[in-house]
Amino acid sequence: MATHLNNRHEVGLKKLNEFTDTNSAQSTHEKIAESLKDIAPAVGEWITDFAYGEVYSRNGLVNRDRAIVTIATLVTQGTEPQLALHINTGLTAGLTGNEIVEAIMHLVPYTGFPRVLNALEVAKVVFSERGVTVNPA
Amino acid sequence: MATHLNNRHEVGLKKLNEFTDTNSAQSTHEKIAESLKDIAPAVGEWITDFAYGEVYSRNGLVNRDRAIVTIATLVTQGTEPQLALHINTGLTAGLTGNEIVEAIMHLVPYTGFPRVLNALEVAKVVFSERGVTVNPA
Amino acid sequence: MATHLNNRHEVGLKKLNEFTDTNSAQSTHEKIAESLKDIAPAVGEWITDFAYGEVYSRNGLVNRDRAIVTIATLVTQGTEPQLALHINTGLTAGLTGNEIVEAIMHLVPYTGFPRVLNALEVAKVVFSERGVTVNPA
Amino acid sequence: MATHLNNRHEVGLKKLNEFTDTNSAQSTHEKIAESLKDIAPAVGEWITDFAYGEVYSRNGLVNRDRAIVTIATLVTQGTEPQLALHINTGLTAGLTGNEIVEAIMHLVPYTGFPRVLNALEVAKVVFSERGVTVNPA
Amino acid sequence: MATHLNNRHEVGLKKLNEFTDTNSAQSTHEKIAESLKDIAPAVGEWITDFAYGEVYSRNGLVNRDRAIVTIATLVTQGTEPQLALHINTGLTAGLTGNEIVEAIMHLVPYTGFPRVLNALEVAKVVFSERGVTVNPA
Amino acid sequence: MATHLNNRHEVGLKKLNEFTDTNSAQSTHEKIAESLKDIAPAVGEWITDFAYGEVYSRNGLVNRDRAIVTIATLVTQGTEPQLALHINTGLTAGLTGNEIVEAIMHLVPYTGFPRVLNALEVAKVVFSERGVTVNPA
Repeated sequence: MATHLNNRHEVGLKKLNEFTDTNSAQSTHEKIAESLKDIAPAVGEWITDFAYGEVYSRNGLVNRDRAIVTIATLVTQGTEPQLALHINTGLTAGLTGNEIVEAIMHLVPYTGFPRVLNALEVAKVVFSERGVTVNPA
Repeated sequence: MATHLNNRHEVGLKKLNEFTDTNSAQSTHEKIAESLKDIAPAVGEWITDFAYGEVYSRNGLVNRDRAIVTIATLVTQGTEPQLALHINTGLTAGLTGNEIVEAIMHLVPYTGFPRVLNALEVAKVVFSERGVTVNPA
Repeated sequence: MATHLNNRHEVGLKKLNEFTDTNSAQSTHEKIAESLKDIAPAVGEWITDFAYGEVYSRNGLVNRDRAIVTIATLVTQGTEPQLALHINTGLTAGLTGNEIVEAIMHLVPYTGFPRVLNALEVAKVVFSERGVTVNPA
Repeated sequence: MATHLNNRHEVGLKKLNEFTDTNSAQSTHEKIAESLKDIAPAVGEWITDFAYGEVYSRNGLVNRDRAIVTIATLVTQGTEPQLALHINTGLTAGLTGNEIVEAIMHLVPYTGFPRVLNALEVAKVVFSERGVTVNPA
Repeated sequence: MATHLNNRHEVGLKKLNEFTDTNSAQSTHEKIAESLKDIAPAVGEWITDFAYGEVYSRNGLVNRDRAIVTIATLVTQGTEPQLALHINTGLTAGLTGNEIVEAIMHLVPYTGFPRVLNALEVAKVVFSERGVTVNPA
Repeated sequence: MATHLNNRHEVGLKKLNEFTDTNSAQSTHEKIAESLKDIAPAVGEWITDFAYGEVYSRNGLVNRDRAIVTIATLVTQGTEPQLALHINTGLTAGLTGNEIVEAIMHLVPYTGFPRVLNALEVAKVVFSERGVTVNPA
């Protein structure tokens, strides 16, 4: 990785933009940073600088693949607010609604039905908000 | 999905083959089925018929993408024997060693370091057995 | 197991009925299937055909015992919507309210108090909806 | 529950005996208590006095049912040393090998295959040590 | 540990008081016990008698340290109602709001961001209710 | 936090040294970095630069408290290789063997016995290697 650490904040912001829907007035990540300001602003910086500036910005895996890995871990953990956020970033990074649904469904043999059912409920809400239609098979 | 259930066993075996390294005398999935024979043979059938015949065989997500989702959930769960198996199936399904390493590294912001370190140890063993070289960056 | 796969859907529906309270206008499983229709109808079919038609329909463990195993895993995972559903199926399958409470309480030495406290809150709501009374000791 | 706390140690030991195979020279619980003696003997006392003396000794759920709940949570958590111990206690408490296998298999739709496969491996070892035969279907 | 079991209830209540904010009309633990009364009162007793009377009352770790260990496990498990309760007990036991925030932030490398973000949201609510101010750095 | 990012590597190394036993020829963290060199060297850098240089180096929580939080999360997750490492770093950071044992025991009401028993086994091995004696109560 060739990210020079003294510009990783800029690298991180640029990468974060690639995952951010420009149709929203304020992105969810901006809302998270805003919400962290009064309690733990450094965590917001770590998300931009470390997660996006150092991890997401590495070569070797395209944005869309990073999004699918992210969705898979969040379904497995059952952390629903972050799953909603990253179904959004996944859509922006090039995953279709159908691919996201398939990725969630693919987890049935690995996590069982409960996590998958809860994740599909989250996906329905996000798809509705984003106006994404799926053609379920 | 158009899998006719009365042939899902054949569909499942065919799909399983797409994930199986033909250089090994006996695949890991055959060893699992063998090991289950004396205690719970139906579980071996469910893996072929349900997991591969119904879930993996769906359209909408290519084998490589299914492999990356599988690796992400297993790293998150910390189930190392299955992670070893599916780093193998992932390599057969078209993921490069570098992509697998990147996918595991990508999980640091979502699972923390411990799961990632343990997963990288598993990957090292599998890569060594399969003669896979990685060019770490 | 002797389930012929070409009739597992019927086997699954029949088994599902054994776990379904007939006093409700629409069962929770019907609501789940309904909710999945627009996003991932195959998952609803898997629940009926695989989970109930192949797993639950096996001999060797009676419905009541399957219900208690299901409740134990869902308390452990902390997946509350599914726990509510399966406290319901457990009551229909012959578990008493007292037995369900005892099973949840039994988990204190294995999961600690937090999961148990959250599960008891879920049980209270379900018991109230079903008009189940318990005689706590 | 009517356990008088000043005799819960005796109640706990008696209950623990009901779960202990008398054919072994030293029970696994004795080995655990022994192993804890030099580091945390109170934990061994809590297991006897609290877990067995207060939780397991409650009325409302028979030993066999407590064993099946215990196995379900341990498969879900993936804590294999304790799973081995409690497949043993379950056999002593009246579960058959077949019932234990069925209970583990029943978890496939709730935990996915990885936890179940690892649990079946543990069961095979315990059954072999105990001379338990199963008739897999 | 020298707790005489026949007085562990009194020991437990006394210890619980050390973790209870006296400014509230009814403590959260009282509300939990109240809520358990109709379904599983023994669990409320176990919390007082076992958790506080036997575990928390041990020498060797001061209240403040027990509080920080408790917060760390609850953030890791993602059990938010109990996290809210124990951010409260932690404040009463002598942790500052800043220390609690630092402890949660410290978990980023071990649990990843999702659990930490959800925990910080819980902390914000508790701090607001308790009138605790933090000076985020 | 006032860490200037262009020197966080040095800050991280310095902080890491505070957690490293100088009696060992090669620290465990050096072995981890060594082991990562051929597969994912950036992860080793992230541990030094991000985990130690940015997270551990923050003011507001002393090293000893960070160690106890770390042990609590690792016991809860059941990630034993990292638990062994951080019982070591905890000892170096000023926790006594007794405090580590107490912190692990304190988790019984929150994680149940299985995780605690497995953690105590890990602690026994580390204490033996480090020549740490405990006075169990």
